[in-house]
Amino acid sequence: MTQLRKLTAAGAIGSAVLLAAGPALAQVDPETKFALDTFSFLICGALVMWMAAGFAMLESGLVRTKNTASICLKNIALYSIAGICYYVVGYNLMYAGVDGGYIGSLSIFYDASDAELALIGGDGEQLQGVIDNGYSVMSDWFFQMVFVATAASIVSGTLAERIRVWPFLIFVVVLSAVIYPIQGSWVWGGGWLSEMGFSDFAGSTLVHSTGGWAALTGAIILGARKGKYGPEGRVNPMPGAILPLATLGTFVLWLGWFGFNGGSQLALGSAADAANMAIVFANTNMAAAAGVVVAMLLTQFIYRKIDLTMALNGAIAGLVAITANPDVPAVWWAMLVGGVGGALVVFAVPLIDKLKIDDVVGAISAHLVAGIWGTFAVAFEDGNFVEQITGIIAIGLFVSITSAIVWLVLKFTIGIRVSEEEEELGLDRAELGMEAYPEFGTGSGRL
Amino acid sequence: MTQLRKLTAAGAIGSAVLLAAGPALAQVDPETKFALDTFSFLICGALVMWMAAGFAMLESGLVRTKNTASICLKNIALYSIAGICYYVVGYNLMYAGVDGGYIGSLSIFYDASDAELALIGGDGEQLQGVIDNGYSVMSDWFFQMVFVATAASIVSGTLAERIRVWPFLIFVVVLSAVIYPIQGSWVWGGGWLSEMGFSDFAGSTLVHSTGGWAALTGAIILGARKGKYGPEGRVNPMPGAILPLATLGTFVLWLGWFGFNGGSQLALGSAADAANMAIVFANTNMAAAAGVVVAMLLTQFIYRKIDLTMALNGAIAGLVAITANPDVPAVWWAMLVGGVGGALVVFAVPLIDKLKIDDVVGAISAHLVAGIWGTFAVAFEDGNFVEQITGIIAIGLFVSITSAIVWLVLKFTIGIRVSEEEEELGLDRAELGMEAYPEFGTGSGRL
Amino acid sequence: MTQLRKLTAAGAIGSAVLLAAGPALAQVDPETKFALDTFSFLICGALVMWMAAGFAMLESGLVRTKNTASICLKNIALYSIAGICYYVVGYNLMYAGVDGGYIGSLSIFYDASDAELALIGGDGEQLQGVIDNGYSVMSDWFFQMVFVATAASIVSGTLAERIRVWPFLIFVVVLSAVIYPIQGSWVWGGGWLSEMGFSDFAGSTLVHSTGGWAALTGAIILGARKGKYGPEGRVNPMPGAILPLATLGTFVLWLGWFGFNGGSQLALGSAADAANMAIVFANTNMAAAAGVVVAMLLTQFIYRKIDLTMALNGAIAGLVAITANPDVPAVWWAMLVGGVGGALVVFAVPLIDKLKIDDVVGAISAHLVAGIWGTFAVAFEDGNFVEQITGIIAIGLFVSITSAIVWLVLKFTIGIRVSEEEEELGLDRAELGMEAYPEFGTGSGRL
Repeated sequence: MTQLRKLTAAGAIGSAVLLAAGPALAQVDPETKFALDTFSFLICGALVMWMAAGFAMLESGLVRTKNTASICLKNIALYSIAGICYYVVGYNLMYAGVDGGYIGSLSIFYDASDAELALIGGDGEQLQGVIDNGYSVMSDWFFQMVFVATAASIVSGTLAERIRVWPFLIFVVVLSAVIYPIQGSWVWGGGWLSEMGFSDFAGSTLVHSTGGWAALTGAIILGARKGKYGPEGRVNPMPGAILPLATLGTFVLWLGWFGFNGGSQLALGSAADAANMAIVFANTNMAAAAGVVVAMLLTQFIYRKIDLTMALNGAIAGLVAITANPDVPAVWWAMLVGGVGGALVVFAVPLIDKLKIDDVVGAISAHLVAGIWGTFAVAFEDGNFVEQITGIIAIGLFVSITSAIVWLVLKFTIGIRVSEEEEELGLDRAELGMEAYPEFGTGSGRL
Repeated sequence: MTQLRKLTAAGAIGSAVLLAAGPALAQVDPETKFALDTFSFLICGALVMWMAAGFAMLESGLVRTKNTASICLKNIALYSIAGICYYVVGYNLMYAGVDGGYIGSLSIFYDASDAELALIGGDGEQLQGVIDNGYSVMSDWFFQMVFVATAASIVSGTLAERIRVWPFLIFVVVLSAVIYPIQGSWVWGGGWLSEMGFSDFAGSTLVHSTGGWAALTGAIILGARKGKYGPEGRVNPMPGAILPLATLGTFVLWLGWFGFNGGSQLALGSAADAANMAIVFANTNMAAAAGVVVAMLLTQFIYRKIDLTMALNGAIAGLVAITANPDVPAVWWAMLVGGVGGALVVFAVPLIDKLKIDDVVGAISAHLVAGIWGTFAVAFEDGNFVEQITGIIAIGLFVSITSAIVWLVLKFTIGIRVSEEEEELGLDRAELGMEAYPEFGTGSGRL
Repeated sequence: MTQLRKLTAAGAIGSAVLLAAGPALAQVDPETKFALDTFSFLICGALVMWMAAGFAMLESGLVRTKNTASICLKNIALYSIAGICYYVVGYNLMYAGVDGGYIGSLSIFYDASDAELALIGGDGEQLQGVIDNGYSVMSDWFFQMVFVATAASIVSGTLAERIRVWPFLIFVVVLSAVIYPIQGSWVWGGGWLSEMGFSDFAGSTLVHSTGGWAALTGAIILGARKGKYGPEGRVNPMPGAILPLATLGTFVLWLGWFGFNGGSQLALGSAADAANMAIVFANTNMAAAAGVVVAMLLTQFIYRKIDLTMALNGAIAGLVAITANPDVPAVWWAMLVGGVGGALVVFAVPLIDKLKIDDVVGAISAHLVAGIWGTFAVAFEDGNFVEQITGIIAIGLFVSITSAIVWLVLKFTIGIRVSEEEEELGLDRAELGMEAYPEFGTGSGRL
């Protein structure tokens, strides 16, 4: 059950069904289908764009006050940069002429087709040519573009509170222009992994693990925050400054995920597509719900206290886990997949701390660990264990190695880390010359 | 004008109109209608899910800092739990085989139909069977599910700052698995109240008053916060900690309400349905606007100061009031209904305080009082005064009695209230072992 | 390429194309098109409503703590009032019978058409009459209404921290009932400017510059905040109190802008409309992205620090700039337009400070300056330089003069400014009798 995200005709399910159904039934006419599929891409894409706000709020809530303006800036900057890079080279590298291979074509810019522009300009003879594409090309571009930013957002959270802003943004350029599109071409672009039978519906591996691997290599190369790990394995808590914003961010991500997974149906204009999209919405919601409940119960049993940030990460882990296969037929299976995701995050967070890998917001646990699990779990339904494991490993190796190279080059050229004094002072004052909460009597003196 | 929320064919309005219009006109073909109705459920349902974030922000803004993490946790947990309960038993209890009676069927799980799964799997012969249902079953489930969480959210605000987290969540289980579905079956499931002629378009009574009755009985049984009511009828203000978040929450609820009321049209795929949905959007907006303006003017005249939290509650009361009948033909009528809602909240809040019923966020006034008013106001248009009053009383009694039983059982078994010391310390430290704003120099010492 | 925002038939592009395409192709049937166009108005309108929350958060984040509750109140109140005024007289003044002239008709209320109400009531013979309108009239009203609030929101930010609440709201009444609709009638209502050939797709001038001119005249007549401008041209910074909320507000605006520009396509139900809407979404996003990146780079080069608030305003300026022409064929052109907008804001903010015009949030730079630029930039594509400049000047003069009259009348009757003591104390305590952050140890004593 391979799935190409860029369809050339009429949607993954719709076309096959229409053929099978024959001409006896009323069908969605092609122009209506074009409008529906395009609108679905646009609305779902807007919801995914909204996830950028979710990451910004989640990370703002979980860093300390002295680094808050800095994390806000990184989030709006990375979303902007990711889009630009994807327009300039990323999309073509991911989708143009991959054809079973390892990379798309290196051509710049991606704009509306000539046929579309002619039709918009009033040339009615172009209608058939436009409709044959199945949806507007820019709606597809928009939808794919917002996914790149999600991958980049994962990195910013893990590396918060000590990475310098410009080196981070340079990494985002490489990630969104080169690393993400190349691995994406292997599956959604129709490359070798999709040919082999690897399946990842909306990106447990392609988006979330990719962001997670980039974050993990970055965290190792960048090192932990000063004072995070004490002697004798002690882990010093550095609690988030404003937890309602972290909660808001999680709700924003949850809402955006309906677009992330639902829009990845890639079509709306047939009964089969619409029905499957509805299954995706329901499963996405319930996987997250199960992630929350499992994380709550586990923290209650293990620590005798419910941990709010763990519950929030449980929601995210549940969402990440179901992303590879959100159209399973039964909701209880989605809840199982999401619930295991929530459990994994409860155990992964202290484990990663034990390894002295400093992940400020728990993104490696929620996106990488749960992403691997979710991708693997596809095989329980599809039976493609070897293919899923191959894809997890191949993309993991590719993203880790290329990310490590970029991080190391940055480290030994312009440097990636603020000085100890700047870290102590806080990135907001050091790099931005401002405070996020100037009237509230907080700042570097407190923590 | 009874309304069953679960339709078996082609939408409340569309089918009748199509029949009446005859075959001479071009009509929306059934598969297109299926896609449109399904998409409308999904997008509107996502907007209603977003209201969970609105309640979380509203309540985070209106509680004190020492109880903020706790209210965040309760909100994300109750949304998760409500969905799970509604999947496991709630939906079937509300919609399966009610048939004029008092309850649906007790069967577990609700998943996609076999015909849908077959069609999605490529069996084109199932197309007709799927289309005959009118919309995807999971899109309907998703839309109905998010309403349960709204009812539960109302309870969390009223009881904040002193209820223990686990007993509260157990109440949510009973509310969303049993209490809400049973009373819902009486109207939207096609039970006795709908047969009689009771009308509640999107849930002034079924959702908002239900949540309000559950909150009211809980507040009475739980008791007021320590120090809230002094001697000689004195009411000590305990102002909300961060009012921009309360404002944000209100805006989130307002946005979500377009899905709440608009999606309750239950269909989009006919001119009549689309036109009525547009009326619903406009009226919903203007009832809220009127609620804000009336609450502002009244607080200015009565107290010589405009009260921001009253203006916010005025918006919510306006929204609640119009929810029973948002498709009235003239916007000025919707403004009247919403404006009265805004006025009621200004008078109900101090009245409820006078009764020493401690409602932290004013939810009883905004949801229960305005919900009763809105449900009653339907009769000015429909003339069904007896039926509306019957429904208000029947559901009020049922929810109050069952809720009281659950609260009392919880109170005399595991207990529902934190200790005085824990209340003084704040629920965040007592139950979660964390602070919502650890760097800001706030906490139990201040208020 | 004039554009009337209120169409009488089947959408700007769709109808022409359908005629040109002839009967050989499958076409969207009229009732499906009606449902699609209506739904597009509703969903896009809801996104624009959401921008009201964006302005509320942006301004909450950028004012000082002592004026935060006040700015929250102004924002929810202005949104409410703008809608009411637009319902009572604004819409008719803007759209009814303008016919090449300078003003619409002065008739009160705007409600659903008789044909729509009859169809909804079950009169199938009205179907053709409803469909001939092309979309539901209330969906169009809803979409146009939310634009008025946007114009009013711009004013509240500039004048924050010293204007009294009731005079401000009276200005909002005049702006949304009279000033905005009259200038709007000149273009979108089919008045003299549209006849001449002035083009403004979604309102760089009609919405954003209009708000900006009203804010500018208000700022001049109201005067600067006490202490803002010292001797010898010194500008005292008065930094925003809570920058994550300002960041959130910007993201909210960005999301809402997809509805603002995308919905201004005014139709979805043809391939040409859907394809053009997709171009609008992509360009809108990329103009904002370019605005962010340019503002970041410029502040880094000029000040050696990246300024977060400038980056946020860069996003807004990019969005404002592309709003006049978001359907340019190539994304790189949208990025150029947006990038110039981002640059303009970096230079305009200190310049406006040099003129001692006190704009608390930078709204004049982001909305007026970038709005003029974006409107002018249309001419690079359309060649209508004279027409664009005429429109910019005509609307600028009209809005400035009428706004100045209103501000001056208010100033010399009820007064528009709080006393020095009240300004020192903060508007929250002075006018609302409350604090936005009562537990956080902030307030008038600090700044």
